[in-house]
This record gives sequence, structure tokens and C-alpha cells, in this order.
Amino acid sequence: MSSLCKAAVAWGAGEALVMQEVEVSPPHPQEIRIKVVTTSLCRSDLSALDSHAIFPRIFGHEASGIVESIGEGVTEFQEGDHVLTVFTGECKTCRQCMSGKSNMCQVLGLERRVSSFSEYTVVHTGCAVKVSSAAPLEKICLLSCGLAAGLGAAWNVADISKGSTVVIFGLGTVGPFCRSSNPISLDINGDSLMGSAKDFGITEFINPNDCNEPIQQVIKRITDGGADYSFECIGDTGMITTALQSCCDGWGLTVTLGVPKVKPEVSAHYGLFLSGRTLKGSLFGGWKPKSDLPSLVDMYMNKEIKIDEFITHNLPFEEINKAFELMREGKCLRCVIHMPK
Amino acid sequence: MSSLCKAAVAWGAGEALVMQEVEVSPPHPQEIRIKVVTTSLCRSDLSALDSHAIFPRIFGHEASGIVESIGEGVTEFQEGDHVLTVFTGECKTCRQCMSGKSNMCQVLGLERRVSSFSEYTVVHTGCAVKVSSAAPLEKICLLSCGLAAGLGAAWNVADISKGSTVVIFGLGTVGPFCRSSNPISLDINGDSLMGSAKDFGITEFINPNDCNEPIQQVIKRITDGGADYSFECIGDTGMITTALQSCCDGWGLTVTLGVPKVKPEVSAHYGLFLSGRTLKGSLFGGWKPKSDLPSLVDMYMNKEIKIDEFITHNLPFEEINKAFELMREGKCLRCVIHMPK
Repeated sequence: MSSLCKAAVAWGAGEALVMQEVEVSPPHPQEIRIKVVTTSLCRSDLSALDSHAIFPRIFGHEASGIVESIGEGVTEFQEGDHVLTVFTGECKTCRQCMSGKSNMCQVLGLERRVSSFSEYTVVHTGCAVKVSSAAPLEKICLLSCGLAAGLGAAWNVADISKGSTVVIFGLGTVGPFCRSSNPISLDINGDSLMGSAKDFGITEFINPNDCNEPIQQVIKRITDGGADYSFECIGDTGMITTALQSCCDGWGLTVTLGVPKVKPEVSAHYGLFLSGRTLKGSLFGGWKPKSDLPSLVDMYMNKEIKIDEFITHNLPFEEINKAFELMREGKCLRCVIHMPK
Repeated sequence: MSSLCKAAVAWGAGEALVMQEVEVSPPHPQEIRIKVVTTSLCRSDLSALDSHAIFPRIFGHEASGIVESIGEGVTEFQEGDHVLTVFTGECKTCRQCMSGKSNMCQVLGLERRVSSFSEYTVVHTGCAVKVSSAAPLEKICLLSCGLAAGLGAAWNVADISKGSTVVIFGLGTVGPFCRSSNPISLDINGDSLMGSAKDFGITEFINPNDCNEPIQQVIKRITDGGADYSFECIGDTGMITTALQSCCDGWGLTVTLGVPKVKPEVSAHYGLFLSGRTLKGSLFGGWKPKSDLPSLVDMYMNKEIKIDEFITHNLPFEEINKAFELMREGKCLRCVIHMPK
């Protein structure tokens, strides 16, 4: 490849990305260069763009692609391999990786840069996972972050028991995976997304802006004292408190997935805990990327999990700013951005 | 009995109790009158005395006694039954009692008045549990609240796995029950209590006041990144945050048992949760009083759990104010108060 390619560069907080040519280095030892095929927009890309990150920067981390070249000493990948990028590593040797109950790799760490809003990107081998080449890259890119995160929050972290009541703050990727329960979704963008939500078996849909009383009271009433589980998927620490208040005494479990943009402190009355509630975090749904993502791709291929239904929009790379607008306005679930062939 | 008996009455916040004659009514329907045999002092009695409770009031809730008379319609108890008082009810019919995973009875509720700092007390049948008459009342009174609370926090709520690292904030009744682990206890009253702690297999003892750096950093260093479990037994919401920070990424579990006297809001950075920590409350160790306390008494009789070693002081009823002083100064674990024969 030429060392030049097109990328969507962020030059300032909240500003539209600028499509421009960038230089992509060849991969160093333990790195691979990926030809990005599709990249979907994750809410954390929007949060990061709106934050005080150091600019210029190329965002994007939920992506699928094909290995274009490999760095010295790389044995895990070959040119032509189909991969998903991941933002959390898995070294398979540290205390966390060895534990069987954590995906917080101490060696490869978190929030490594993936920079998938570019035709080519170079990542550490720890940031990519080889997947079946039979799977459609333009669909499975959703498993690279958001969809796996929601699925895992419901299956691994909450481990929802049959017949439970579940409340989800922020219509995201959790609701569809609350098996054997009747999830209630709360979203202020309810009207535009309700159609999609119903496709996923969400039984009740509440727009908090339409309620005349605090939403936790509404939930307590319709769930006879509080939900068994609540999920905070918005990234609002105040909403974590509301989610705790919406759970029942005794065994109510609140799982928080969101990355707050503003106030980082979670605050809640101690009595919420003493009366039996639990607050738990979920990062990437508890999945170990290298160990677990290939199986999720296979489950999709075997029609055991849905992906297609989450994709409300498809856009060419040139229109990436439109994807940000759709998300900002709460009009999309997932928008897949297709790189030039 | 005469309708008059001696009681230790609290007349104002933080003031010494006043020993005086009070009138005790006969039991109404669904009530029983108990001749208190021993009552131990629980930290929440001290907190309540120091609070803005409505005075005058008779505190005390961790007690053992003998049923003196029963109210109309009472079939569960007979005169002469040995009982422990309990502050949380169990109706066995509500959603919480039926759940098998909660002791937050919706019908009988919490914090019912026991008023055991009196020779006789009248309680709802929901506030007493019949136990084996072979068990020594002056020992098993500790199971009425604090000891069962610590035991249950370790066994039921945290369910500590073998070989784990456990940190306990506030030397209380949790540490001794962290089976198959090497609990580290933190207490600013360490010096005076260390002897007792060592009796219980606590391997390390830290007085935070002796440390030159934040205690969570000390713990992270000696536990190689954080403890598997931490317990907050003090009743200090700031310490709940510290307990969370002292846990490891990935699976760190903080259990809070204390009832805070001052600031009721727990506050913690969302990142503590997102990186895999869980915060859970424990009230009365998750025990259902009627269903579980008799078995705990039997376990004591079979030498499966220790009680005697917790009793650092015994005092006659007349010296109850001395018990409050010992606790205020951090000089006792449990002080048992013996009523006149």
C-alpha cells in the first residue's frame, strides 16, 4: 500500500471531523496494519469527541477489517486474516487474565488507541482478534464493542434469572439480550427508536420526559416495589443513582455500563445498599476479547444472536459526520460506516 | 410480675442512661413479654444514643431472655421459652420472605423497637426467635445482632472463596468468619484490641493512624493490586469509598454493614465500578431471623462457631454506662450486660 490513506480527523472538541490524507507507518514489532472494512459509531466516540481530548486525533474503535501486513515477530496473525479491533487487551498471563473472572488485562491495559476512522490503521496485536472469514465484516463489526458489551452485561455480569423484571436506562444493546424476562426500556429518544426496540422483545417503553413523577417511582409502581435488575447504559452518574432506586430491596442489582461525560462521582444513600441492593460495573460485558469474541461471531453465524436488527443506518465513510449527528440526536441505534472498497 | 421494673432510660443525645423504674404493660395480642437475661451492647445503640432520636427512649436490641407471658392469639411462644430478640422481622409470606434471597420482610419491617435495656420488655412476636433452652443465654445473646451480622456478611453476602485476600475496616464480627483466607484488619483502636483479633486468626493488623500514606495504597501494595474482598463495618460512608479503592480490579467485592452516623451518601468514582468492582450491602448478614437463628445457636452448641472469644467484658446492669464508655473508647469487642436474677 501507499503510506498515505484517507482518515477522518478530529481537530477540536465537538467539531465536525475533517476528511484528509494521513500517513500510516508500517507495523512495528508486535503490531499489525489493518485495512478497515467497516467501523460503526459507538457512543464513547461521541463522548470522546465532545471531551477535552488532545487534538488532533483519529477516533473510532468498533471496527472490522483485514490484516494488510504484520510486524516483526507477529505469529498470531497473517496477511488476509479477518479481524475485529478491541479496546481492551488480553495477555492471557497476568493475574486478571488468569482469573477466569475478569477482562481487565494488567499488561495490555485499556483504552488503547484503535483509530478506526481511517482506511488503514496500525494496532498492537493485543488490540485485534482473528475471526471466521465466513462472517460478514459489515455486520460483525458491532461485536467489536457495543453489542458485545450489552450482551455480556446481561449474560455475564448480571446473569439475569428467568422471569425477572429488568429496567434499562438508555435504549442500547442490553435489552435485546435480557432473555426470559420482559425488559422495560427508558429513553428520552423513545419515539424515534421505539420501532426497533419492539423488534427486540422489549415489552414496555417509557419516555421519562412524559412522566409527571420521578421515574424511579413510576418503575416501583409498575414492578411492584422495584425491578430485579436495572442497567445504566447512558453514561450519567445521576442516572446510576436512579437505577439503584428503581431496583427492589433484598436482591436488586444495578449494572452500570456507561462512561459518564460530566460528573464522575456516583452518589447514593447508604440505605440503598444496606437494604440489599448491589451496584456492579460492566466493561465490555466481561468478555475476554481473544478468548470470547470468536465464539460470539460463530453464534451470530448460527443465528443464536441477532446483529442485523441493531443496524439502523449505513453510511459511506465520506458521510461520517452525519453518523455523529444521528447519534447526537438519538436517532440511530447503530450506524455502520463503510470504508471505500 | 409487678408492672414495674428497672430500665436504663436515655433522656438526651450522648447523655448517660438513667436507671429508673418504668411500667411495663402486659402483652397485647401478637405480643410477648420477655424477662431479659442478658443484653449486649451493639455499636448501633451507641450511634442511636448519640443521634437526634426522640427522647426519652429505652435502647437495646441484642438480647436473650425468657418468655414471661404471652398475648392473646400467640401460638408460637409459651411461657418459659428461651428467646433471642431480633430487629428485623420475618413474616414468611411477603415477596421478600418468600424469595429465599432476602431478609427484608415487607410486612414486619425493620428497626422495630426491642428496648432490651430493661428487666422486662414487650415485643411483637415478629421480634423474637425461640431457641434451644440448652444454650447459655449469656453467650448466645451476641447472635441476636452483631455476631450473626458479621458471620452472615462473610458467609452469605460475600461468600468468600478459599485463599482470598480480605480486608476489614473496623475490627468487628466479620474477620473471624473469613474462613480459608488471611484477613487483614484495620482499626484505629488496634493496640487495645489486637490480642483478641489474633485469637481469631486475623493475620495482619494495621492502624491507619500509623500509616504515612493513604490506607488504600498500603493495602494495594501488600495485596498485590488490591484485596479480593473488603468489608466496611464502621458506619462511615467515606470509608466505604476507601474500601472500594482497596479492592482489586476485575472482581473486587466491597460489602458494607455499617450504619453511618453522619454523611449518609456513599460517593465513589464510576471507574471503580467500571473496572470490575461491586458494592453490596449486608443487613443482619442476610439471615432470615426465624428460619436461621436457631441453627446458628445449634452451631455454637456443636462448637462450629465461636462466641465466647468475642466477649471482652461482662458487667451488671447497673454499670451499663460503663459499657457505653468502653465502646466509645474502642476498648471492647462485645460487652455483655447481665440483668438482676
